[in-house]
This record gives sequence, C-alpha cells and structure tokens, in this order.
Amino acid sequence: MKLNPLENLIENLCKLPGIGRKTAQRLAFFIMSMEEKEALQIADSIINLKKNARYCSVCFNITQNEKCNICNNPERQHSIICVVEEPSNIVLIEKTGYKGVYHVLGGTFSPNDGITAEKLKIKELEERVKTGQIEEVIIATSPNTKGELTAQWIADILKKYKIKVSRIAYGLPIGIDIEFADEVTLLKALEGRKPINV
Amino acid sequence: MKLNPLENLIENLCKLPGIGRKTAQRLAFFIMSMEEKEALQIADSIINLKKNARYCSVCFNITQNEKCNICNNPERQHSIICVVEEPSNIVLIEKTGYKGVYHVLGGTFSPNDGITAEKLKIKELEERVKTGQIEEVIIATSPNTKGELTAQWIADILKKYKIKVSRIAYGLPIGIDIEFADEVTLLKALEGRKPINV
Repeated sequence: MKLNPLENLIENLCKLPGIGRKTAQRLAFFIMSMEEKEALQIADSIINLKKNARYCSVCFNITQNEKCNICNNPERQHSIICVVEEPSNIVLIEKTGYKGVYHVLGGTFSPNDGITAEKLKIKELEERVKTGQIEEVIIATSPNTKGELTAQWIADILKKYKIKVSRIAYGLPIGIDIEFADEVTLLKALEGRKPINV
Repeated sequence: MKLNPLENLIENLCKLPGIGRKTAQRLAFFIMSMEEKEALQIADSIINLKKNARYCSVCFNITQNEKCNICNNPERQHSIICVVEEPSNIVLIEKTGYKGVYHVLGGTFSPNDGITAEKLKIKELEERVKTGQIEEVIIATSPNTKGELTAQWIADILKKYKIKVSRIAYGLPIGIDIEFADEVTLLKALEGRKPINV
C-alpha cells in the first residue's frame, strides 16, 4: 500500500457506516492533532474488541466470556426469550427493565443481501425452545417488511412447540402529536386498542 | 480499566468530534461485526498515522518526512505563501490549482480557548518572510471574527517587510441563488465588484 498515513486512515475510516469522505477527513485531521496516548487508546480499543469480544454461545450477544452476563445471571427469567435482530437492540430493550433473556438473530431476512434463513440463528433458537424450559418467545424484530417476514417465519417454526409466541405491539410512539402519525401506524394503534382501567 | 471491550471502544470513539454516544455505539457494533482483518486495519492506520506522520519543518503541513511534498516540490512557486488555519485547508486550496506554497498556523486567535498569538506559527511565518525570498503572503483564514483578527494581526506584523500581503476575496459563493445571500456577503460582493471583460 503506497498511500501516505493520513490518506490511509481516511480510506479506512470511510469503511465505517455513515462516515463519508469529508467526515473521515475531519476525523483523521483531529486524530493527527490528538495527544499520541489518546489516539493510540482508540486503536487499542478496536484491537481489544476484536481480540477479546466474542458472541455468547447461548444468545449471541457480545461478551468477553463463553456466556454473556445476561445468560449467566440467575436473577433473569430464563423461560422468556426476547428475539432481536442485533446485539445493539439489547441495549435498548434493557432500558425498559425487561427481565427475561435474549436471542440475537444476526439480522433479518434479506435474500438480496445474501441473508437467508440459514444465516440467521433461527435453528439455535429452536434448539433452546426444544429444551422444554422456555415458556414464551417475544419476537422484537423491526416493524418493517423484513422484520415482519422474519417474525412470521420464526412463529411458523415455533408453532409446533407448546409455548407462547408473541410479537411486540404496534402503535403510536409516545410523545408525538397524533397529527403527525402515519395512517398505517394509526390503523395498527386502533386495532391494538385496550380498555382503560378506571 | 474495568470497562468491557465494547464499552471501552464506545467511550474512546466518543472523544472524536461529532461522534456522540449513539453514533459511537453504532460504530462499535459495526466494528464488532466486521472481518477481523478489516477492523484491525483501522486500528493500524491510526497507529501508523501517529507513529509516522509529523508536521513539515517549513510549513507545518502533515507529512511523513522532514519537509512536505509541497515544500519539496521544485515546480511550486516558493515565493508565494498561502497562510491557512489547519492542514485540512490545504486539501481544499490544492483543488483550485494554486501553485504556491503554504504556511499552517495551527488555528486562529481564540484567547478563550487558550489560543494566543504565541501558540500560532506566526513567528515561523515571519522567519520565512525574513529570508527575502518571499514576494507575496496570501492570508486564507476564515471570513469570521477570529479569522479576520488573525489576518489583521499577521498583516500588521508583515507590513515592515517589502512584500505584498493579500487577503482572499469575499463575495457570493458560486452556484447559489442570489436570493439566499446574506446582506453582509452581498455588501462585500458589491464592494469587491470587478469590470467584466467583453
């Protein structure tokens, strides 16, 4: 590689999602101006992540050990599995106070991008259900075409087991003005209406 | 440091400009999913930049050698110096086809941020002018308060030398609809008007 160090870093930063050439340039010039120690810490933390982080052997969350902290925690409800697309989704759901465990699919169906059923951890989910220790599987894939298709596929596979398979609710996001809701969401919100407890 | 590798990388990425916690999280999860080789290339290019890149001893541009490619190029006009704030500005000006050389100040006056005249490479600029081989200094700092103040300061220092000291022109940016020009720019554009050659 005959690129100079600056150009080389810019090219490499461009591989990250949402980082275009201009942003990469800005970041590279900033790194150039950083204290050496601080800049090397960034590099080290990338190396450290790639060398020391791995996927949990049970749920495919990111972890340093064979099993992740959530799967290892005896205080979680191990009979409830929340199925998510990516490890990053776990961060979001953890904020809700959810007490069950997870299963990371590693994406959603996307045959055009080469993501077929075999590439997702669906077989591994079925294996967990087969143990007979699971009571409910909550499918928390995105409410878009690929997410829905994936949810439907999983529900189909799991229907032969005597467990509850549920889908997270559709409805209006909290805090918006109803005027700005799209009609599909509004329809789903009407269909999913619940009695008000008074 | 007791942070796990993922959290550690997120914290480190947050130190970069324009990267908030959410973006850092997205980048870190992406790096986790990258091929090991590709991810390590990013780390290596940061290390490489910090270990092998330095500032040109003449103009303070970023370079791998003692002098940068521009200062070392005998085909450039070494009697014309374009004064810029940061090395990144050189990338922009190079695109115009400018054939002179540069001088990087390393910022603009900003006493509140601790950037005083001594921290900028103004003395070094004066030393270059003192050699008697400079005909013109073009000051290309930003057209804002700090940039103007810096330009004025440099012009004051250089006025005792028999050279031309110029400031890049103010005016309307190319391609905009004149309706969207602010009044200060428009005033500057009027003041700077030039005869049309027919």
